[in-house]
Amino acid sequence: MPDEIREIGVGMLGYAFMGKAHSNGFRKIEYMTWPPPLRPRLVAIAGRNEQAVGEAAGRYGFERWTTAWEDIVADPAIGLFDNLGPNSLHAAPTIAAAEAGKHVVCEKPLGRTAEESYEIWRRVAATGVKHLCAFNYRFVPAVRLARELIDAGELGDIRHFRGRYLQDWGDTDAQVWRFDSEEAGSGALGDLAAHVVDLARYLVGDIDEVGGFVHTFIPNREVDDAVEATVRFANGAVGTLEATRLALGRRNAFQWEINGTKGSLAFDMERLNELQVFKAGDERTRGFTTVLVSEASHPFWEHWWPPGHIVGWGDTFVHELHHVLRAIADDTDVAPHGATFEDGYRAAEVCDAIVRSSASGRRESLSYRTLES
Amino acid sequence: MPDEIREIGVGMLGYAFMGKAHSNGFRKIEYMTWPPPLRPRLVAIAGRNEQAVGEAAGRYGFERWTTAWEDIVADPAIGLFDNLGPNSLHAAPTIAAAEAGKHVVCEKPLGRTAEESYEIWRRVAATGVKHLCAFNYRFVPAVRLARELIDAGELGDIRHFRGRYLQDWGDTDAQVWRFDSEEAGSGALGDLAAHVVDLARYLVGDIDEVGGFVHTFIPNREVDDAVEATVRFANGAVGTLEATRLALGRRNAFQWEINGTKGSLAFDMERLNELQVFKAGDERTRGFTTVLVSEASHPFWEHWWPPGHIVGWGDTFVHELHHVLRAIADDTDVAPHGATFEDGYRAAEVCDAIVRSSASGRRESLSYRTLES
Amino acid sequence: MPDEIREIGVGMLGYAFMGKAHSNGFRKIEYMTWPPPLRPRLVAIAGRNEQAVGEAAGRYGFERWTTAWEDIVADPAIGLFDNLGPNSLHAAPTIAAAEAGKHVVCEKPLGRTAEESYEIWRRVAATGVKHLCAFNYRFVPAVRLARELIDAGELGDIRHFRGRYLQDWGDTDAQVWRFDSEEAGSGALGDLAAHVVDLARYLVGDIDEVGGFVHTFIPNREVDDAVEATVRFANGAVGTLEATRLALGRRNAFQWEINGTKGSLAFDMERLNELQVFKAGDERTRGFTTVLVSEASHPFWEHWWPPGHIVGWGDTFVHELHHVLRAIADDTDVAPHGATFEDGYRAAEVCDAIVRSSASGRRESLSYRTLES
Amino acid sequence: MPDEIREIGVGMLGYAFMGKAHSNGFRKIEYMTWPPPLRPRLVAIAGRNEQAVGEAAGRYGFERWTTAWEDIVADPAIGLFDNLGPNSLHAAPTIAAAEAGKHVVCEKPLGRTAEESYEIWRRVAATGVKHLCAFNYRFVPAVRLARELIDAGELGDIRHFRGRYLQDWGDTDAQVWRFDSEEAGSGALGDLAAHVVDLARYLVGDIDEVGGFVHTFIPNREVDDAVEATVRFANGAVGTLEATRLALGRRNAFQWEINGTKGSLAFDMERLNELQVFKAGDERTRGFTTVLVSEASHPFWEHWWPPGHIVGWGDTFVHELHHVLRAIADDTDVAPHGATFEDGYRAAEVCDAIVRSSASGRRESLSYRTLES
Repeated sequence: MPDEIREIGVGMLGYAFMGKAHSNGFRKIEYMTWPPPLRPRLVAIAGRNEQAVGEAAGRYGFERWTTAWEDIVADPAIGLFDNLGPNSLHAAPTIAAAEAGKHVVCEKPLGRTAEESYEIWRRVAATGVKHLCAFNYRFVPAVRLARELIDAGELGDIRHFRGRYLQDWGDTDAQVWRFDSEEAGSGALGDLAAHVVDLARYLVGDIDEVGGFVHTFIPNREVDDAVEATVRFANGAVGTLEATRLALGRRNAFQWEINGTKGSLAFDMERLNELQVFKAGDERTRGFTTVLVSEASHPFWEHWWPPGHIVGWGDTFVHELHHVLRAIADDTDVAPHGATFEDGYRAAEVCDAIVRSSASGRRESLSYRTLES
Repeated sequence: MPDEIREIGVGMLGYAFMGKAHSNGFRKIEYMTWPPPLRPRLVAIAGRNEQAVGEAAGRYGFERWTTAWEDIVADPAIGLFDNLGPNSLHAAPTIAAAEAGKHVVCEKPLGRTAEESYEIWRRVAATGVKHLCAFNYRFVPAVRLARELIDAGELGDIRHFRGRYLQDWGDTDAQVWRFDSEEAGSGALGDLAAHVVDLARYLVGDIDEVGGFVHTFIPNREVDDAVEATVRFANGAVGTLEATRLALGRRNAFQWEINGTKGSLAFDMERLNELQVFKAGDERTRGFTTVLVSEASHPFWEHWWPPGHIVGWGDTFVHELHHVLRAIADDTDVAPHGATFEDGYRAAEVCDAIVRSSASGRRESLSYRTLES
Repeated sequence: MPDEIREIGVGMLGYAFMGKAHSNGFRKIEYMTWPPPLRPRLVAIAGRNEQAVGEAAGRYGFERWTTAWEDIVADPAIGLFDNLGPNSLHAAPTIAAAEAGKHVVCEKPLGRTAEESYEIWRRVAATGVKHLCAFNYRFVPAVRLARELIDAGELGDIRHFRGRYLQDWGDTDAQVWRFDSEEAGSGALGDLAAHVVDLARYLVGDIDEVGGFVHTFIPNREVDDAVEATVRFANGAVGTLEATRLALGRRNAFQWEINGTKGSLAFDMERLNELQVFKAGDERTRGFTTVLVSEASHPFWEHWWPPGHIVGWGDTFVHELHHVLRAIADDTDVAPHGATFEDGYRAAEVCDAIVRSSASGRRESLSYRTLES
Repeated sequence: MPDEIREIGVGMLGYAFMGKAHSNGFRKIEYMTWPPPLRPRLVAIAGRNEQAVGEAAGRYGFERWTTAWEDIVADPAIGLFDNLGPNSLHAAPTIAAAEAGKHVVCEKPLGRTAEESYEIWRRVAATGVKHLCAFNYRFVPAVRLARELIDAGELGDIRHFRGRYLQDWGDTDAQVWRFDSEEAGSGALGDLAAHVVDLARYLVGDIDEVGGFVHTFIPNREVDDAVEATVRFANGAVGTLEATRLALGRRNAFQWEINGTKGSLAFDMERLNELQVFKAGDERTRGFTTVLVSEASHPFWEHWWPPGHIVGWGDTFVHELHHVLRAIADDTDVAPHGATFEDGYRAAEVCDAIVRSSASGRRESLSYRTLES
């Protein structure tokens, strides 16, 4: 490792699915991205289960571990706090870490409600640290390419967005925190629909109005299994948002399509290396092109392989965390390509509005608070 | 033609796109289906443009033509009246033909509103003739197979329906009757969304509630370009309905997906010979199976070719009109596989409810009138 | 039917699979293509089984039927003889019909060997009638579009052709003429590989050399089940040719791919409305485009429907027979888009060379006879 | 890292494309596979360019670097030698390392000819160390699943294999070692066709006969651009093998299909997470199933994510190198799932036979030497 690459101490809260994904992301950054903006040093990891967190520390290479997240917040060796805990543990540790001067990454959804999300954003923004809400799908190469094509005007004005996140593991008796309303806040809404909302905002723009409902199929389940909604965007586009944990056969099918006045895009996370692109042109060869997003000129591809040698889902975390480290190292903005806590808050406003619409039976207009409000 | 096959005189109103499709359907029935239930004799065709209707008569083999549909209704040689006129011409001629004792086929949407549709149904049902609302997509082999799989319980209880009909020809200055609110009644709603509603009803069941809106993108256009809606079914399933004439790159993409407790189905009209089937089972080989619906045991396939030799969009009319002729010949019910005028009316109720929801901002409950009400 | 459209009497030999396909083709021509070049009048049909040929005549609308093909050859009302009999019945009736002054269509393979094929060609060509070897896949819209793109130079120089025709019905004890070496001449070779050879020639050009073998898997079967070969073209392209009746899951998968110096094409008959097109260009949106071949400007589409409303396998015969009728009506060449008997002969030379290579173990050079030789 | 996990010192020759891929593989093993069989310690890396190898050492975390591979062979801290050099550097360093008692991994093709490959195998086998020829595609989860399905008899007897490896970067003036006949030995043959041969052997079995040719399109190029061949397997299956660097639009399209008496499989490396599976059964839902190979019960999936969260091309090296470390740690066989040097030699015999066939014009029978011969 060259001398000139500075180190940053990382503290992590959570060691399960996301702990593995983020640890892998940090570890790969130091050699897959070259030179890395900062060298992540895995200082400490916190979790509830003493044995499990200890094993995770050994496995992923953290220097120390603790069952008290406060230890991490207080640790002077840590410059970046990465919060992967259940949703109920997003607010307090994240705010505390930021107020202790640490840059913060927090898993989505930012808070369990718009109110909680706003509070996290407000308190963290006041400290001046870098903050990223870990909507990692912004860091899929095909998604970034979609954004670049849209920014370049290749779709013209956007008229339609239809997004749905379909999984099928929900028909289970398993007791997991994701079914606990106190810990999770919501079900498919915060877990899956929030991703749809975030990419809708990232690719199309802010949402003005939603109508729809949340629905629970499984008896006695505290949280929703499915979300169905219509949507209007500030720029005039219209569409639908859906999410479910009960679409048999769909494992991780985050699918979206965007239609503009000059072209269209379509995507499915189960084939995350591909972007379907339609551009108006020669009628004889008109159709959607399956772009295998792996060219030297494609987003993030400077880190990887020759064309056609695809990346995996886990690699999106390399891109995401690299983006944070770059922002810290160079004092650049996390936005627009990274989701800030403001983005996390705005997604929460949309999710809350769907819940309100579900109860009221009415389409709900969105209004977003600013830090001054 | 064997002596024992009886003849039926056909009178048609309309000679353009649908006139060609239905004429082709009638002509193929007498040799592709064997033995045909009745031999269609193309007696007369009516249309507004004298030259065009005369040419159509010559081309498709009608014995005579007229610019007055009343001639057809009065023609004693005609036993089946096939109404393919613009939506504003559905009610009067169809009712008159039925009251003159002719069986009737009427293109969708049945009427321009639920009220008009109900009136057509009520008046025609009172005559006792056979009536079919020409939702031809029920007669796609893959769609019928879907219905058979659902009826056999292979999907279990249905939880989700998501259907969308996407076309892209709407960004035009052309003056066609489909953009005229008086003639068409609505835009994408009656033209495309009605198809989605009908297949949702055919495959999942009756709709209890819709919320959503219609939207017009093109300045000065009288009718809607797009429809976005959420939906609840009487059996507890939930989902979305969409239709648009402005999804660039989608030519005739009537796509739907159904998820049940035991399996799922997915379909795209641009690949109308294929049905995607997921059935819970062996985890190692789990996934959607692309069924090329062309086996000897598949619906309608007794009429066609060896496996793998696919049919075209136009062939759905052979199936549809064969179904009507069978019902007439054997005095069997048009339902459940054919859409009756009651089905046409019920689809119109759903479409009207979307329009009401669009105006009111509220989800709208559906109630359906019966003939006694 | 307008007065100015002349009639042509059609005589057919064969009433089974191909009899149905060609009868349907002739019947649709008179209204799907407008105005038709000639109006086909179905005069007479011949076949071995008296009851079956009689029923076919009634079903498809032939005025008379016979068990003696000589009756058809002698019939002065017939101007076009369409030979759909088993391969062993291609030579004598076709030559006799031509020598009686009738234009001739003959199913593929033209003869059972190159020698027999040459003789048919030589004798028929000497009469001056129009002749077409019914390689109907040249008349798939996507295949014609492929040819047009290649002719326009959009692929540059062609380097690779890989074609395979995969079916899976061969693992059967059924006794059908296609397994009889006397009647069929060969198995997958003449039935399927001949199609691959013909499209290779149509799209890439003449074949200079082949190496490979035929193989029979099923015990006691007289004909081959599979063909495997490498190929060199006169223009320097190289590739492979395959055919089998034992590729489980592939029903009618005639798949080919062509790579040139500027672009590539790929096709699968099970999705016959689609052409995959790659054109070198912008790296960011590079990939194969799925062209749904159904635009107004696409080949044959003047006969059909609005974009996105796909055609079926059976419709290729409308195009093929329309092409013959046009050639007869206007005295234009069947070539290059229709396969002449010379094309039938040349395909047979390639098939024979594969058989020779199978026996000799050597790659075999091709030389083609001309009529003067 | 738990105390009980032993360490193994790794020495690497080569730092470019494969150096990155293998380094990443070694680094991920210690936390993605848990517990790892051995903890790889990256001791030393060798390469020709002093600056580049030094940078690679810093980037990937090797303790030291050298421009002399002999240093690595002599290094007592190294227990595993991983040879990623150009083909001309496979033999000497690999043999020397094995003779120094180090386990060896060598990139494919093992040698530039069968003779050279045999010599490497013979010399290395004599030392008793573990040896793996790095045909990494055996370690794609979908490929291993294919093998498991075949081993379980789910395809029945195999009749057909058709494999092709298509890339498109070959139309270039770039001077790279892969175009140098001395360094590379061959072009598409050893680079791409060798992979096809290896998977054909892994999935179907040994090859008895090949016929075909190598072809060079680009003027003045020393090595072949394309390979076309037919093949017969010892078990009676037949098929084709192809490889090219000139198939525009195909970036890394290693595609193969296998047909058996009970089922079929198909695969494309550009969608390496998917396996297409056909199993004979219910005719109504017959077709190829797209299996997203990411279930808990799927091969290698114990190391990864929840279902539907796909892996990348780079992750195949984690599986491959993990397999080697397991064999070393537990003294188990590298075969059958890993390719041994005998497998590397046998693939070379097939490649050589294609070259002989190209020159002789004859199909060539294969005979394989054993260590005793």
